[in-house]
Amino acid sequence: MTKANFGVVGMAVMGRNLALNVESRGYSVAIYNRSADKTEDVVASNPGKNLIPSYDVESFVKSIQTPRRIMLMVQAGPGTDATIQALLPHLDKGDILIDGGNTFFEDTIRRSKELADSGINFIGTGVSGGEKGALEGPSIMPGGQKEAYELVADVLEEISAKAPQDEKPCVTYIGPDGAGHYVKMVHNGIEYGDMQLIAESYDLMQNLLGLGASEMADIFTEWNTGELDSYLIEITADILTRKDDEGQDGPIVDYILDAAGNKGTGKWTSQNALDLGVPLSLITESVFARYISTYKEERVHASKILPGVDYKYEGDKAELIEKIRQALYFSKIISYAQGFAQLRVASKEHNWDLPFADIASIWRDGCIIRSQFLQKITDAYNREADLANLLLDEYFLDVTSKYQQAVRDIVAIAVQAGVPVPTFSAAITYYDSYRSADLPANLIQAQRDYFGAHTYQRKDKEGTFHYSWYDEK
Amino acid sequence: MTKANFGVVGMAVMGRNLALNVESRGYSVAIYNRSADKTEDVVASNPGKNLIPSYDVESFVKSIQTPRRIMLMVQAGPGTDATIQALLPHLDKGDILIDGGNTFFEDTIRRSKELADSGINFIGTGVSGGEKGALEGPSIMPGGQKEAYELVADVLEEISAKAPQDEKPCVTYIGPDGAGHYVKMVHNGIEYGDMQLIAESYDLMQNLLGLGASEMADIFTEWNTGELDSYLIEITADILTRKDDEGQDGPIVDYILDAAGNKGTGKWTSQNALDLGVPLSLITESVFARYISTYKEERVHASKILPGVDYKYEGDKAELIEKIRQALYFSKIISYAQGFAQLRVASKEHNWDLPFADIASIWRDGCIIRSQFLQKITDAYNREADLANLLLDEYFLDVTSKYQQAVRDIVAIAVQAGVPVPTFSAAITYYDSYRSADLPANLIQAQRDYFGAHTYQRKDKEGTFHYSWYDEK
Repeated sequence: MTKANFGVVGMAVMGRNLALNVESRGYSVAIYNRSADKTEDVVASNPGKNLIPSYDVESFVKSIQTPRRIMLMVQAGPGTDATIQALLPHLDKGDILIDGGNTFFEDTIRRSKELADSGINFIGTGVSGGEKGALEGPSIMPGGQKEAYELVADVLEEISAKAPQDEKPCVTYIGPDGAGHYVKMVHNGIEYGDMQLIAESYDLMQNLLGLGASEMADIFTEWNTGELDSYLIEITADILTRKDDEGQDGPIVDYILDAAGNKGTGKWTSQNALDLGVPLSLITESVFARYISTYKEERVHASKILPGVDYKYEGDKAELIEKIRQALYFSKIISYAQGFAQLRVASKEHNWDLPFADIASIWRDGCIIRSQFLQKITDAYNREADLANLLLDEYFLDVTSKYQQAVRDIVAIAVQAGVPVPTFSAAITYYDSYRSADLPANLIQAQRDYFGAHTYQRKDKEGTFHYSWYDEK
Repeated sequence: MTKANFGVVGMAVMGRNLALNVESRGYSVAIYNRSADKTEDVVASNPGKNLIPSYDVESFVKSIQTPRRIMLMVQAGPGTDATIQALLPHLDKGDILIDGGNTFFEDTIRRSKELADSGINFIGTGVSGGEKGALEGPSIMPGGQKEAYELVADVLEEISAKAPQDEKPCVTYIGPDGAGHYVKMVHNGIEYGDMQLIAESYDLMQNLLGLGASEMADIFTEWNTGELDSYLIEITADILTRKDDEGQDGPIVDYILDAAGNKGTGKWTSQNALDLGVPLSLITESVFARYISTYKEERVHASKILPGVDYKYEGDKAELIEKIRQALYFSKIISYAQGFAQLRVASKEHNWDLPFADIASIWRDGCIIRSQFLQKITDAYNREADLANLLLDEYFLDVTSKYQQAVRDIVAIAVQAGVPVPTFSAAITYYDSYRSADLPANLIQAQRDYFGAHTYQRKDKEGTFHYSWYDEK
């Protein structure tokens, strides 16, 4: 019996689609799932495919050629640990486990250390693109031993998406241990930000101009031909054209409850930024915006009690729409600037040596945040590999300089109109903070020294100082 | 030899001052420090005081009457665990350990469980007020076994601050295990928010009106006689009157470096809010504001590259100052509304049954956020114990209704002027989100269902729905 080239554990939809993707590139794929029915179903629904099913762990491992390349597509968390423990007794030194789940990067760091002691290679990889991406070509962010990556690079490159600009595979070696899952986490945080920015744009057009879904669909379609060209803008335009499917008149979007769920990866990004001392305000506001959306009943109650404002926008419609577009692009730049600033700090913190230009490059296709815009980030890091902040790059400097007035106008109008724009506000606030040589934190340091003797530094000389606040003046 | 009524471990400044505070109320106090020199110093500098020093753990424990009441004032973290382990062999069942350090509440929950097995009572208590407060009367937030609290209540009540309104001690039983340290954590987060709001007010007066420190000192002094009456406004006014103490002309505040430090408790509050699904935007923006302040060199560099805007405020000076005052009070209300909303969710999550009215009450004196304003919160919870959000209370509703226009004007002006106001922006954004019956999260849910089949709920009927986005239209 010939052995399989590759193994996949976990036959839920992501694992199944990934196995089929690998098989479609000419590999034989061993498959296994804890419960037999899912494996049987994959085999039954894919007749003639080069799939080698097993119904116990040992047979599964033995059915794969060494050094074994086994991808785990199981529920992140204890499920991953249990799967690794089940596989471990049957593996040989040099085998490679690839965790393709939505794993918290610190778990990947821990598992990487634990497995290194057993001589097993471990790759933790982000896989973005949803079910469709897993089948047709996702963006893949692998972290782990460089040598182990070399042994799986061929498969990962073949199954990944290919960027439309240059047909390059949307996969690259990200760095040691948790680097891949870390980068996937920040990708997801950025995704939260992108979605909230689009939602605020939609909300402003609806509230200030009274536009309906079909008019907005045309606007997003138009936007998708320019700087904002991206998957999320494209599907937004498509969503806004869709009619209700439950027998009501009008667009489906008007019937969907405004209570946004989340799977926790946006939260992780914000919590990690807080740990690293990185001001990640825009993504964090987008997480909080999802949270407050879930307080639907409380909001409906509050809407009857808390007064708003009388405001009617009476300016030019086309001008406002263009300002919203500029504000959206400006804010998107701020969000990515914050996200990449976080990657930079994390890279130093963990000695990952993250390849920023390549990271932007492999996000150009396959993943949810795919866009033309990412090429601009790659270009920026190609111009200067150690760029402190994207806002300092010539392209982004040019756009933000031109568009800053639009975002100022939009935030001012929204605040006067009572339309909440948490991420647009965070964007302009960050821009103004970042370009401020002086911030009022001197007063905060004085307060801290006053009540807690925390000391402070001075602007005019080196050293640590404490003021005798309690002495007689 | 008569035994001590109370013991204190840790003779750094907080422990020393707390021991002296207890002694000053007529108790004999056993004291111990890992290194002898600090204990010797306390004894030598306080002749005639009823202090019983010990230089080894066993003698220390034996010098205290049972059931022993021992307060730990040691570095939070592993130091606390080491101290507990050292004491444990010498303790008897029923003894009470009181951790008064700045401990993360989850550590307190863990220690509480561990010690319960040994029959030792454990109280984790927040102590706020800095060195001065520890000596003269702090605000104290104890969590742990109710019965154990009863055995230490007399001492804690005597050493605590007394609220000026009614002379009530600024201490109350907060709840089981980690409740006390949790409430202290949120207190500190609120402190970050209060400080940043004051800093933004100062920044606006400086940048829009060109006011100097002494003029602003007068304004804060004036504000301190009204709704904003609080310790932090009071010390801000005082700080702004102080001259440089290193030989330079002008106010000290102009020489203090604008890079704000932090001890991590604000960060904890934000991270926990993210875990609990609570939109805590204002405090989180205040943490991020401290973070970006530390990027001093990068900001100075960026200030030379990123253009700002030409803006000159030409309105009435007194009117703007009054609007800033109203915006500050409005935003302070939002910050406390968010903080207490977080306490409410945490209380349910941990079954703590937190006494919200009492918590606001014991913050009225002794701690850094002490203010007249806290009485309004106590009043609100006395009117309705299960108030979902402070914004729904009649008093806060009245103020925010009146002041919302001011905060809208201030944020609009600041954004047009290029002055960053992250917490003022967060305040009005939260207000507008909270009073929105409909938010644009329906579009986010549509996107999530589109790319990830995450499903959604509907506004018009119960159930979970998925749209066939990929079918032919």
